[in-house]
Amino acid sequence: MKKSAIPAPIMKESLIGQRVRKPDAPDKATGKTRYINDMVLPQMLIGKVLFAGRPHARIMRIDTEAARKLPGVHAVLTGQDAVGLKFGFVRDNVALKDKVRCEHDEIAAVAAETEEIAARALGLIEVEYEDLPGVFTPEAGAREGAPLVHDDFPGNRSLHFEFRHGDLAAAEAASDLIVDNVFRPHHVTHCCMGTSCAIADFDHNGKLTIWTQTQYPYNYKMDLAPALGIDPGDIRVIQPPVGGAFGSKLDVYPYEPIAALLAKKTGRPVKVIYTREEEFQASPTRRAAIIHMRTGCTRDGALTFRTADVLLDNGAYTSWGPTIPVIMMRTTSGHYRVPVVDFKAQAIYTNNPYAGSFRGYGNVQTTWATAQQMDMLAEMVDMDPLEFRLKNAQVSGETTPQKSFLRECAFVECLETAAGASDYSRKHKEYAALRDAPGRYRKGIGLASSIHNAGGAKIHKSDGIGTILKVDDYARVTVITGASEIGQGIDAVITLIVAEELGVPLEHVTLVNNDSDIAPWDVGVHASRTTFIAGNGARRAARKAKTQILNAAEKFVEEPAGNLDLRGGWVVRADDGAALIKLERLLRQMHFQAEPELVMVTDYYEPRSEPEGAGHISDHSAAYAHAVHVAEITVDTLTGEIKVDKVTVAQDVGRVINRMGLEGQIEGGIAIGLGYAISENMRIENGMLRNPSFRDYKLITAPEMPEIEMHFIESDCAEGPYGAKGISELPTIVIAPAVANALYNATGVRIFDPPMTPETVARAIHEKRAAAAAGGAAVRRESVTA
Amino acid sequence: MKKSAIPAPIMKESLIGQRVRKPDAPDKATGKTRYINDMVLPQMLIGKVLFAGRPHARIMRIDTEAARKLPGVHAVLTGQDAVGLKFGFVRDNVALKDKVRCEHDEIAAVAAETEEIAARALGLIEVEYEDLPGVFTPEAGAREGAPLVHDDFPGNRSLHFEFRHGDLAAAEAASDLIVDNVFRPHHVTHCCMGTSCAIADFDHNGKLTIWTQTQYPYNYKMDLAPALGIDPGDIRVIQPPVGGAFGSKLDVYPYEPIAALLAKKTGRPVKVIYTREEEFQASPTRRAAIIHMRTGCTRDGALTFRTADVLLDNGAYTSWGPTIPVIMMRTTSGHYRVPVVDFKAQAIYTNNPYAGSFRGYGNVQTTWATAQQMDMLAEMVDMDPLEFRLKNAQVSGETTPQKSFLRECAFVECLETAAGASDYSRKHKEYAALRDAPGRYRKGIGLASSIHNAGGAKIHKSDGIGTILKVDDYARVTVITGASEIGQGIDAVITLIVAEELGVPLEHVTLVNNDSDIAPWDVGVHASRTTFIAGNGARRAARKAKTQILNAAEKFVEEPAGNLDLRGGWVVRADDGAALIKLERLLRQMHFQAEPELVMVTDYYEPRSEPEGAGHISDHSAAYAHAVHVAEITVDTLTGEIKVDKVTVAQDVGRVINRMGLEGQIEGGIAIGLGYAISENMRIENGMLRNPSFRDYKLITAPEMPEIEMHFIESDCAEGPYGAKGISELPTIVIAPAVANALYNATGVRIFDPPMTPETVARAIHEKRAAAAAGGAAVRRESVTA
Repeated sequence: MKKSAIPAPIMKESLIGQRVRKPDAPDKATGKTRYINDMVLPQMLIGKVLFAGRPHARIMRIDTEAARKLPGVHAVLTGQDAVGLKFGFVRDNVALKDKVRCEHDEIAAVAAETEEIAARALGLIEVEYEDLPGVFTPEAGAREGAPLVHDDFPGNRSLHFEFRHGDLAAAEAASDLIVDNVFRPHHVTHCCMGTSCAIADFDHNGKLTIWTQTQYPYNYKMDLAPALGIDPGDIRVIQPPVGGAFGSKLDVYPYEPIAALLAKKTGRPVKVIYTREEEFQASPTRRAAIIHMRTGCTRDGALTFRTADVLLDNGAYTSWGPTIPVIMMRTTSGHYRVPVVDFKAQAIYTNNPYAGSFRGYGNVQTTWATAQQMDMLAEMVDMDPLEFRLKNAQVSGETTPQKSFLRECAFVECLETAAGASDYSRKHKEYAALRDAPGRYRKGIGLASSIHNAGGAKIHKSDGIGTILKVDDYARVTVITGASEIGQGIDAVITLIVAEELGVPLEHVTLVNNDSDIAPWDVGVHASRTTFIAGNGARRAARKAKTQILNAAEKFVEEPAGNLDLRGGWVVRADDGAALIKLERLLRQMHFQAEPELVMVTDYYEPRSEPEGAGHISDHSAAYAHAVHVAEITVDTLTGEIKVDKVTVAQDVGRVINRMGLEGQIEGGIAIGLGYAISENMRIENGMLRNPSFRDYKLITAPEMPEIEMHFIESDCAEGPYGAKGISELPTIVIAPAVANALYNATGVRIFDPPMTPETVARAIHEKRAAAAAGGAAVRRESVTA
Repeated sequence: MKKSAIPAPIMKESLIGQRVRKPDAPDKATGKTRYINDMVLPQMLIGKVLFAGRPHARIMRIDTEAARKLPGVHAVLTGQDAVGLKFGFVRDNVALKDKVRCEHDEIAAVAAETEEIAARALGLIEVEYEDLPGVFTPEAGAREGAPLVHDDFPGNRSLHFEFRHGDLAAAEAASDLIVDNVFRPHHVTHCCMGTSCAIADFDHNGKLTIWTQTQYPYNYKMDLAPALGIDPGDIRVIQPPVGGAFGSKLDVYPYEPIAALLAKKTGRPVKVIYTREEEFQASPTRRAAIIHMRTGCTRDGALTFRTADVLLDNGAYTSWGPTIPVIMMRTTSGHYRVPVVDFKAQAIYTNNPYAGSFRGYGNVQTTWATAQQMDMLAEMVDMDPLEFRLKNAQVSGETTPQKSFLRECAFVECLETAAGASDYSRKHKEYAALRDAPGRYRKGIGLASSIHNAGGAKIHKSDGIGTILKVDDYARVTVITGASEIGQGIDAVITLIVAEELGVPLEHVTLVNNDSDIAPWDVGVHASRTTFIAGNGARRAARKAKTQILNAAEKFVEEPAGNLDLRGGWVVRADDGAALIKLERLLRQMHFQAEPELVMVTDYYEPRSEPEGAGHISDHSAAYAHAVHVAEITVDTLTGEIKVDKVTVAQDVGRVINRMGLEGQIEGGIAIGLGYAISENMRIENGMLRNPSFRDYKLITAPEMPEIEMHFIESDCAEGPYGAKGISELPTIVIAPAVANALYNATGVRIFDPPMTPETVARAIHEKRAAAAAGGAAVRRESVTA
C-alpha cells in the first residue's frame, strides 16, 4: 500500500437526513437481482398444491395412485402425511387438510421434475367431497347453532380481547353529543409482485434449510417446526431478495411446510411457487371487520368517551392477523385525549379465506372509524374539524389510558403543519358551502390523523436485536444484523448510520442479514420497528468499534482519543479536522502490531418498552408517533369516481435518517392506503373469491397517484437513533379516512364500508339527492344521538 | 417449549481424539454438494482462454474481429486489455500476455453465451507468432548469454536465498565421511478432481464478487487487485465447495483476473472453468529442482555439516512457489542435529510451466535428499540406519541453527515407534543380505523422517485468525471463522472443539467460513497451520462463550460459576454432574431477562511465533513436529515395478483432535507422496507438456495404496489446542525417500531423480547387474568421499 498524501482538514459533515439510495437499487433497477422466485438449486423439484376449491366440505375419498404413477412425479402427499402436525397462532392449522374449511384449503401436494408434470399430476388426483353448510360472516359464525368451522372451537370463537377504562355510564351521561356508527372494513390482499415462494432442502443430519420470503426468520423457526414435527433449532432460514411482503410474510403459511414435507419425502430440494391466481386465492388478506364505534363529546368539543365493539372475520384459520385488536385498542383508547374507553373485540371463525398481518395492523380499520367520527362530532358541535382536533390532541408528557407514554409528542405540530400547508380550514369551509351548487364535479378536502407505535411493539418476550460488526484491513465494514430487508430500506438506513459513525463511504459498508445461521436474533420486520431498533443496534455497534479504533489510534498519532474523530476515511483531530492517519492504514497497524487486534464488536439492544401487560396496560413501545394527512379530491358526481389530486402529509418522524427512504415509505404507504380506500376489494361470495386477477382486483397504479407534499416533523426522540422514530405504517393508516372526510366535504355523503368505488359513491350521492328531493336531508349515518 | 425431564448425572466425556466425520461428508458422498464447478448464476457467460501453445515467441499480429462478430460472443480481450496490470510475487505476470513465455500463456479470452460459442470464437482468433529460442532447464537459464525470459530480470534470476551457520571448512576437515549427491526432483501437478474455476461479477458500485477455489481469501484480495487495477477492499471472495486444492490455490492464476476482466467488460457474471487437459497445461506444478547436497559425519556417526546448493526451475512466472527455499532451508539446517550449515538456492526463469505451492512446500524435495543421505552415511559408518538416526536426533528443548525451538520434540519416540512396530532393523539386515540372492522378486524396507512447521509459519506480518461465535436460543452454535475449508477437514475439527467446550452435539455447531465479507481475517490454508491456529481461535472463542454462559447461569441455578460445567446440552454441577438446567432454556432466560444478553463473542488469536527474520533466523512457527515412515516394498527386478506393501507411520501430532481426519490426512498424504515417488511425472519437452491426461499421467489409485499402520505420538504441545500440532504436510513429505531407501535395501540401487518408475528402476537394476558382471560393485552414487 502506498502511503496516501495527507489531505486538507476534514470537517464533520453529517449523513443524517441526507437522501441515500438503497444499496440494491441499481441491481433491482437493471434486472440483476435474483429473487427467490428466480432461484434454481441442483436436483430441485417443483411442488404444486391441490386446493379444495369449495369452502366447507368433508373429504370422503382421495385417490392419488394415478398421480404417483406419472413419470417424473417423486412424491404425492395428502392430509394423511400431516396428521398431528398442527401449527398456527392457536394451533388450528395443518399443512395438508383432512377436512375443507375454506376455498384454498390444501388437500394434496405433488413434487415432480417440472411444473408441467406436477400440474398434470394434480389433475390425476381424485377427491370425493361432501359439501357442508358454511358460515361466511362473523355475525353468522357467532350465531347460536351456526355450523362449526373447527369442532374444537365452540361458538366459532377464535380470540377475544377487552379493555375498559373509566366509568362509561357517567361519561355517557356527561356527553352532549354522541356518534354511533357501524363500519365494515373489507378484505384486501397484499399483492406482492413476487408471489409466495419457498424452497426447502434437508441435509443428511435432518437439518432443514428453507429459502423463504419470511419477514421474521427467528420466530419463524418456532412457528414452522410444529408443522413438520422437528426441533426449531434444526431449521436454517435464508431470505433471498423478496418481491414484497408488507406483513404477508409474518406467519407460516401452508406452502412452506408443504415444500419441506415434500423435500423430506424426496430427499431433494423442493420449490413451491404460486401463480398469480393462486397468490390471490391462497395468500393472506387484511382482516375484514365489523366495528361498532361510539364517541361522545361535550358541547364545547371535549371528548368524553369512546367505545368499540369489534367482530373480526377470522376466516378458517388463525394466523397472527387476529391479534390486530392489540393495536386497534391502542388507537381506540389513545388517539386523542379520551378519558373513558370501552373496547371489545372477538375473532369469529368463518369459511372465508383467512387473514395475515398487513401494514397498519388493525390501525387501518380503526382509524377508518375514529377519523370519520372526529369529523362528524366536529360538525355536530359546529367547530372547524382542525380546531376540534387541536382541542383534543395530546401533547408531550401525556399518558394514554393503556399507559402509552407520549414522551416526545408532535401531534399538534403535525395537525397545524398539514392543515396550514394545505390551507385546510379555508378550503373545507368553501367546499362545504359549494356542496349543493350545480355542476358535475365537486372539490373536497379531508383531514385525518392517527397514532402508531414508533419504537417497536413488545408483543414478544423481547423486542431487541443482535448486531455484529467487523472492520477489515481495508476499512471495509461488515454489519451482521438480525434485521431483515424486505424492500423497506433498512439496508440503506444501517449503511448510512454506520458510515456516519465510522466516517467511511456508504459503499464501504456491507450488510449481512439474510441467514439465520449467521445473523443474530431479531423479532422481525413489523410494527414500524426496524429503523428504530436495528438502527439503534447498528449505531451502538458502530460506536463500540469507533471507541476501539480511536483508543488504538492514540499511540499511533500521539493525540488523546478524546480529541480524535473518524471522517472521510481518516482519523482526524476532532477540533480542527487535521487528517492524522488513513483509517485503513491504522487498521493494518493495529492488526500487525505486537499485541494485535482486529475490530470486531457485538451488541444486543433491547428497547426500554414494556411487554404487552395484563389487562393490556403497558408502555408497549419505546416511542409513539402521529401522522396527519390532508387529502384534496375531485368527485365526479355522475360516475362516483374520486380523483385524489393532492395529499399533504405531516408526520412525526422523530428525525429524518434517510430522506429518500422516508419519501419512498410515504409514497408506498399512500399507494396501499389509497387502493384500500377507493379501489381494492376481494369479492368473496359464500367463501369463494371471484376476482383473483389484476384485471378484476384494481390496484392503484402510477397514473392514479396524487401529488404528495411531505412535511417531516422532527420531535427528536430521546431513545431513537439520532432521534428517529419508526415511520412506515402511518402513511397506509391515515390516507383512507382523509379521503372519506374529503368525500363528505365535497358531497355530503359519508361512506362507512370501504372501498369508496365509483359504484358505491355514485349510489350514495344519488340516494342522498333522492332523499333531499323527497324533502329530507338524511345522511347515511346509522345513529346520531344529540 | 416444554420443560425437559431432568436426566441422570452427566459425567464429562471428552470428544478430543474421537473419530468424527466431516460435516459435509454425507452430502459429498451422495452427490448433493454443489461445487463451484456446478454453479450457475443468472445471465452468466462462459469465458474461455486462448493459450499460446508454444514456449517462447513474439506476437506479431492478433486479429480478433471475426471472433467479436460471432453471434453470442459478448467480449474478446487480448494483452492490450491488461497493459500495466502486473501481478504475482515479483509482479512479473499479467492476465493476458503481449509476449509468449510458456506454452500455456494466455493470449486472448472470450466471453460468450455458451461454452461451444466461446470455443468457436477462440478458433476464429488469428495470431501470428515469431518463435524465439527458449531455456528449458535452470542450468540453461543461468548460463551466461542465455535468452532472457523477462527482459527486466537479467540472468533469468527470479529469487535468491542463502543461509550459513558455522565454520564449514573446519567442519569438512573434521568429517570422516562425506556424501555428495545431486538430486533432481521433477515436475508433478496437483490433479484436483475439480478443475480450476472462477466466477466473477461486478455490482453497480464497482465491487467485484469472485467465487473462487482460493485457499487464502484475505491476502488473495491483495494479490488479485493489481491484476485488475482496483482496490483490494472492493473485492468480495466467496469460496463454494472446492474439489481439491493441496496448495494449488495459494496464488492468483490468470484465469481468475481473466474472469473478472470479462465480467467488467460485459457487465455480467462470467465463469471460466478449465477442461482436464487445460488443467494439466495451465494449473501450477510442484517445483522441479536440482539439489546438490553434501553431508558429513564422523566415524562414530555424529553429523558434522550439511550443505545444499539448489537451483529451482522457476518456469516463466514467479508465483509463491519459488519461496519454498524458506522451508527447504529449515530441513537442511534443522533436521537432525547439524552443527554447520551452508544453504543456497536460486530460482531461475525458464520457458517451462511455472510452479505454485504444493503440499510439503519444498520439504518434499529436500527430504528426498536428506533422508537418502542419512541412509548412505549410516551404511558408510556401518551402523544400523535407525541407530545412526537416533544418535543425531534432537530432543525437546533443542534449538536449530535457524532458531527453530523444538519445545516439545517427540522425534526419538517417532523413530523408535515406527522402527519397533515394523521390526525395521531386523528386516533391514535380512533383506540387505538377500539382495543378491536368486529370484525375480526382492523385499526391501526403508525408513525416512522429516521435520515440518506444525504451528503455522509466520511468513506474513501476521499468522493469526479471527473468530466470531454466537449461540442462539436453541443452543445452536455458529462459528464464523477465517479458516477456509478446502477438503482438509477443519470443519470437523472446529465443530469438535466447540462441541467439546460447550457440551452440545456436533450437529448443533455450524461453521460459516466461505465469504470474506462475513468471516474475519486469516492468512489462509497453508503450512499445516489450520488445526493449530483456527483450532486455538475456536477454542478461545468457545471458552469466552462458556464463561459468559456459566456466569449468567449462577443466578438461575444458585451454584457458583466455578462449579458449573456444560455437558450433554445441560448446565451441570461440575463435581457430581447433576443436571441443573437445560442449556437452551438458560439461553432463553438470559435473552428474555430484564438485563437481556445474547451469547456473541469475538476473538483474535495470534500465535507466539516470530516473523521470518533477517538472515532467516527466527522461531518462525509456534511448533514443530516430526514424522517417520517405514515403507516395506516388493520389487519386481525384471520389470522394475515397485509394490509398496505396507507403510508404518509414527508422527508427532501433539494430540489427536479428530482421529478420523488425522487418518484421512495421512492416507491422502501418502497417496500424493507415493505418486510423486513412483508414478507421477509431467513430461515436459522443450517447454511443451506431452502427457496432459490421466491416461498418460499416472496417479496412485486405490488398488496401489499400501496397508498403512499409524502411530500417533502425543507430545502435548503447550501452545496447541489441547496439545495438538499441525499434521497435514508431513505424510506427503516422508514417504518417497522411505520407498527409495527400501528400494536400495531390496536391490542395492539408489535413485536420485524421481519418479522411481518401472523403467527407471529396471534400468538401474540392469546397469548395476551389468557393472557387477563386469567385475565392479558400482552403485550409481555421484561422489562419495571417505
